Amino acid sequence: MERTYSAELSRHVGERVRVAGWIHRVRRLSRVSFLIVRDARGLTQIVLEDSGVVEQVGRLHAESVIAVEGLVVVNPQAPMGFEIHDPEIDVISSAISPPPLDLFRPVLKSQLPTLLDHASLTLRHPRRRALWQLAAASLAGFRAALNSMHFVEIHTPKIVGTATEGGADVFKVDYFGRPAYLAQSPQFYKQIMVGVFERVFEVGPVFRAEPHDTTRHLNEYVSLDAEMGLIQDHTSVMDVLASTLREMVEALREGSGEALRLLNVVLPTVPRVVPSIHFADALDMIGENLGEDVSGELDLSPAHERWLGEWAQSEHGSEFLFVVGYPMIKRPFYTHPDPARPEFSNSFDLLFRGLELVTGGQRLHRHDDYVAALVARGQEPDGLKGYLEAFRYGMPPHGGFAIGLERWVAQIAGVANVREAALFPRDLQRLSP
Amino acid sequence: MERTYSAELSRHVGERVRVAGWIHRVRRLSRVSFLIVRDARGLTQIVLEDSGVVEQVGRLHAESVIAVEGLVVVNPQAPMGFEIHDPEIDVISSAISPPPLDLFRPVLKSQLPTLLDHASLTLRHPRRRALWQLAAASLAGFRAALNSMHFVEIHTPKIVGTATEGGADVFKVDYFGRPAYLAQSPQFYKQIMVGVFERVFEVGPVFRAEPHDTTRHLNEYVSLDAEMGLIQDHTSVMDVLASTLREMVEALREGSGEALRLLNVVLPTVPRVVPSIHFADALDMIGENLGEDVSGELDLSPAHERWLGEWAQSEHGSEFLFVVGYPMIKRPFYTHPDPARPEFSNSFDLLFRGLELVTGGQRLHRHDDYVAALVARGQEPDGLKGYLEAFRYGMPPHGGFAIGLERWVAQIAGVANVREAALFPRDLQRLSP
Repeated sequence: MERTYSAELSRHVGERVRVAGWIHRVRRLSRVSFLIVRDARGLTQIVLEDSGVVEQVGRLHAESVIAVEGLVVVNPQAPMGFEIHDPEIDVISSAISPPPLDLFRPVLKSQLPTLLDHASLTLRHPRRRALWQLAAASLAGFRAALNSMHFVEIHTPKIVGTATEGGADVFKVDYFGRPAYLAQSPQFYKQIMVGVFERVFEVGPVFRAEPHDTTRHLNEYVSLDAEMGLIQDHTSVMDVLASTLREMVEALREGSGEALRLLNVVLPTVPRVVPSIHFADALDMIGENLGEDVSGELDLSPAHERWLGEWAQSEHGSEFLFVVGYPMIKRPFYTHPDPARPEFSNSFDLLFRGLELVTGGQRLHRHDDYVAALVARGQEPDGLKGYLEAFRYGMPPHGGFAIGLERWVAQIAGVANVREAALFPRDLQRLSP
Repeated sequence: MERTYSAELSRHVGERVRVAGWIHRVRRLSRVSFLIVRDARGLTQIVLEDSGVVEQVGRLHAESVIAVEGLVVVNPQAPMGFEIHDPEIDVISSAISPPPLDLFRPVLKSQLPTLLDHASLTLRHPRRRALWQLAAASLAGFRAALNSMHFVEIHTPKIVGTATEGGADVFKVDYFGRPAYLAQSPQFYKQIMVGVFERVFEVGPVFRAEPHDTTRHLNEYVSLDAEMGLIQDHTSVMDVLASTLREMVEALREGSGEALRLLNVVLPTVPRVVPSIHFADALDMIGENLGEDVSGELDLSPAHERWLGEWAQSEHGSEFLFVVGYPMIKRPFYTHPDPARPEFSNSFDLLFRGLELVTGGQRLHRHDDYVAALVARGQEPDGLKGYLEAFRYGMPPHGGFAIGLERWVAQIAGVANVREAALFPRDLQRLSP
């Protein structure tokens, strides 16, 4: 008999079906027992009355894989609104010991390090699964949005000869005896590819050897990158970003209803016009309202970002806020200055619920500007020959952005630690599983 | 005025439009000159008659970025069937020197190493662009196929604590002073995720430190991985693979018509039933037909794969051939044996046009079988604790496959070297751009 998913039972009321999955829970009452089977798409309740079947199930540890043939009956109290009566059970693969954690509990009680140590098991928990389902739906929305705007998907190398963003925060690789690095971002490559396809995007891992141990940082994460040519300035990029986020939220609404309910997620609305504030004005406002001396600050602290998030909510009714015009001195060498105020940049961060979610902006596009920017920072342009070649031969004004997938999911779901939104997070301590 | 793409000119005949892009070519005839502008979606021919405009264009190197406003006129001889008359030209970004290669030639004549050294420029050539367009369309088809079969997209870490496939062919990373490796495949993680979502797929980079210098190998490539649970055996995986390839071919047919024409690609047909031959029978046939002594061989050589490809074509009219049942001794430790002939495996390779394109098979699913397999190979099971935990707690029979994206594109397009199908290939010598 062909296998039926838990989510499809409604179509088979009054029929015998075969469901298959993991033993999620067994509840013994005096006259009847309930077996809950978890499959890829949900839970199925099975009513056990026959003492032989109760005994058969009693010999199995939770998480054993079984198939169940039985009759589909409506029961509004059952997890999916249906249950299975009169079951026959085949054991497909037995768990060899009871799991160290009870996956049937609504929330796993253990500390995060324990949950991550046992990721092979704990990712099976419905809430952990739901978190990743938000990630998968968001990725689908990201790609759909950019495809509809004529962006071409690219995949660029992660082993590179030159550190992209400079600095010490780069992992070293032994490349056949030569020094190499893991890409901190696809920045150089996506810019080169603007010369090829005008508009490109990439979904892939990025690697940051930052020795931070915070709830917001991962040392390897999934970056959703886009880059586009023939722009006016950074505001063209901000428009595309807003459309993209709007479609990601829509994909979540349409594609992950069950996960949203389970996690009690209230989806944000991306306003028709996302409010925007200049970095200098943001500092003034923070100084005035928090009574702090922030004059001369070159960046926003997490506390300042949180305050701006609250301000955007109360002033504009928006959970999103663009901060534009960060000082050039804190931005990477490829950043385009604001032509009117060259100490500020044509760059932006997008704050979402008070946390920096996206960084982006306009890039330099003239070869001479690159050479000057590198020399000014004491860098040798020759080390970037393959990259700079793109700018010798005609590059239009261009810019782009990068969204951190796990951070997006964590903010959407309101989980406290970005590690919960990754399948197998990498941090200062953690290298496995 | 809003910008119009080359591919949209047909909708604007008799109107003035603004096109923008790169100067692909300038052809001067005695009375008239033609300017060809390349944008993301094709070429536009612009007729230059005004001597001022001819002079203005004459001052620009090829690859300079310009915008052109002019009148759209039908001309069947023009690249897209239309051309622009009476142009006004804005220079957006000048190339600072003439490019070292003529991008307007139908085929770039330089040697491959030169083309790869100048990837920033040469990827702009229509044929190089078309090759990547095949990759992008294939990726869309791969995801659409697997999404429709309820596979969930995953992203798993590329920095790992344990080498996946064992052996010496692994890149070492310095992870905050601890030894780590680049993932040779997402194998362990996609198996763990079968316990979570039953069916998963991943598109991402894999890293192989193989010191080979062949036309078929890259040291970093894009792997299209899938893994599924609750299978009968490896044939269930082969069925899903055939459906997936069918949809990838369909996506190429629908989504990359212009690229297919440019590259003269004849798309393959994935037969309703892909022919399949057992490894032992393949060896017998090769021995008989080629008069070679292949008894006791444990693998197929490239020449043998080519011969089998020809055989599948003449015997079954198929460009695809499954070879199943490779000897266990040549397969990784997680391979499931053939229950009837345990020296052979429930694994397969898929040959496409005589080259191994996909490897897959059924995996072990019982914890004890893993421990025994590792001990038999002299490996310490404790080193794989986080992976083996998945098998302690109920794993169904499962299997999967991995397609190499660049190899697929190279075979589809009939290019001689897989490096042509990568944007920025990594090989023994090449680490940039």
